[in-house]
Amino acid sequence: MKKAGIPALVLSPSSDLYYLSGCRFHLSERLVALVLTAEGTFLVYPRFEENYVGEDLRSCAECIPWDDGEDPFRIVTGFLPPSGGLCAAASSMPASFLLRLQKNAERFSLSWLDAVSIMKPLRMHKDEAEYALLKEAQERAGEALQDLYNWGLEKKSEEAVAGKLGALLREKGLERADWGPIVASGPNGASPHHSVSGRIIQRGDPVVIDFGGVWQGYQADMTRSPVAGKASQEYREVYEVVLSANEAAFRAARPGAACEDVDTAARELIAKAGYGRYFNHRLGHGIGLDIHEDPYMVAGNKTPLAPGMAFSDEPGIYLPGKFGIRTEDILFMGKNGAERLTSFPHDLQEI
Amino acid sequence: MKKAGIPALVLSPSSDLYYLSGCRFHLSERLVALVLTAEGTFLVYPRFEENYVGEDLRSCAECIPWDDGEDPFRIVTGFLPPSGGLCAAASSMPASFLLRLQKNAERFSLSWLDAVSIMKPLRMHKDEAEYALLKEAQERAGEALQDLYNWGLEKKSEEAVAGKLGALLREKGLERADWGPIVASGPNGASPHHSVSGRIIQRGDPVVIDFGGVWQGYQADMTRSPVAGKASQEYREVYEVVLSANEAAFRAARPGAACEDVDTAARELIAKAGYGRYFNHRLGHGIGLDIHEDPYMVAGNKTPLAPGMAFSDEPGIYLPGKFGIRTEDILFMGKNGAERLTSFPHDLQEI
Repeated sequence: MKKAGIPALVLSPSSDLYYLSGCRFHLSERLVALVLTAEGTFLVYPRFEENYVGEDLRSCAECIPWDDGEDPFRIVTGFLPPSGGLCAAASSMPASFLLRLQKNAERFSLSWLDAVSIMKPLRMHKDEAEYALLKEAQERAGEALQDLYNWGLEKKSEEAVAGKLGALLREKGLERADWGPIVASGPNGASPHHSVSGRIIQRGDPVVIDFGGVWQGYQADMTRSPVAGKASQEYREVYEVVLSANEAAFRAARPGAACEDVDTAARELIAKAGYGRYFNHRLGHGIGLDIHEDPYMVAGNKTPLAPGMAFSDEPGIYLPGKFGIRTEDILFMGKNGAERLTSFPHDLQEI
Repeated sequence: MKKAGIPALVLSPSSDLYYLSGCRFHLSERLVALVLTAEGTFLVYPRFEENYVGEDLRSCAECIPWDDGEDPFRIVTGFLPPSGGLCAAASSMPASFLLRLQKNAERFSLSWLDAVSIMKPLRMHKDEAEYALLKEAQERAGEALQDLYNWGLEKKSEEAVAGKLGALLREKGLERADWGPIVASGPNGASPHHSVSGRIIQRGDPVVIDFGGVWQGYQADMTRSPVAGKASQEYREVYEVVLSANEAAFRAARPGAACEDVDTAARELIAKAGYGRYFNHRLGHGIGLDIHEDPYMVAGNKTPLAPGMAFSDEPGIYLPGKFGIRTEDILFMGKNGAERLTSFPHDLQEI
């Protein structure tokens, strides 16, 4: 912050607040704010959420509980630099909080900016402990998927499969992700953000299964597209294209390459195979404490890849009315290239 | 908006956007914005989320899909009034969106405000259809709780009870709420926002069970504090105080009374019984599409109660190291007084 000339940072409950403080506050209409300035670190929170404040934070921050009926925005404003300058607000801070802080501090002539400029470099470069947590999350997710395959898909509803997968993920020790698993069978697979439905999976149906869970705060995310029974010839052909695109992106992910180059590597391969218009989303997203975070593998993102980055490699082909196929791994950038944190097999599974 | 002199409203994915458009977009890093101005209604969204756009909305709004790589903020800015004035932003809009819109539209000299001033009066006064949905949500939640009582509490972990209750709620047709049930047994009940733990419920333990689910978009919310086995004499006495406080608030909830008066009615009763410092949260919150919304029953809120308002009546007494008790109903304001939407019995249940 000193280097960037930003004298104040205000975080509301978010993965950023957790990252800096270790406190797992939930976002609600009651203000919780972690304020960092040259004067010190301050945590403002509703008194009855005292239990979220860790002992280690108490030793390095001034903790200020407030009671229902008090105005916590006035408390926070009191910690902002009255001499003005840049003030960073958590990317996810609700407008209702930000607009009140902006109004309260109007006389300070602060310029507000997105805290992403401070938090992104920190969050984007994972250390060894974060690497280990992400890898463990993927491993456990993979084990749950294997158990699901053993349980079977045919004649079950998408909802039943999603429910079973959820239970298996918890059995593996993963906390529930705040997004449900996607189980998209047959033509439903062609809608990349179909969630689940009551549709019964028929013999021969391809099924896109996109799911995850949380391991000690860190997210798992994986997609596989098995077939309930025997795959058609067309499915096999398209499956190979998606797999090659996944592999092309993996090979393009090298330190110094731009994020968009990784997207392009997969996209060009799919276009050459004649399916360009059926790959209608970006290749991938960063992952860590959030399921979607920087860096994004998307056209226009020239951020150079660097060691410590973790992101998804998830090309897909979606043929309307027929089926969809997506293969998603999590990649971790090392010094010499990417490592797949997802060890679950890639080959077409007929269940 | 015309009456309030607000020429523009921008909503990101939220219950407000759903309320006005019927579209169930999810908040993600990709911008979705519903823009209302004198010029028209515009919906800007990622092309691959086309499926969230209902036919009825298409007939009254201009729908503008964008592709990964495009700048959706430029598109939205193009719809804002270049002649300036007030521009309302959804209360829950993330700072990352709001700060970009503020920056993009800097030359328009807009004054940004919280859309709560437009949305609150609409959302706070429920119509008959909303009343019916809230009532149905409470009914189904109550049926699930009865089934849970039949299943039993003793010798089960809080987590197992929460899992069972979740399954029962889904059996009753409720969608999963985005907050887990609270199952707080024995001394855990004294922490009003304890969630669940592996603690095994012992014979004689009181258990605070606070839970809900979603019925056609509308939230259920209910708390009961049964005992696994026989209640102690002290528990019985405190239980009666909480019940009387719940009843006092119910009777104070009359059209024209201030929201804070309802809180005060319960609080004074608890204070007179000598437990004032152990009722350490507000009495209640509004409920509808959101689990917590206006009006709040809290000291300082002078909003007069009016027909169509729905809110929780949830006094509690929490004795550290011993137990907690909370009894929560949802009240609906009619022309002559409040109606309890929660028909589940109040009396102390020994299970």
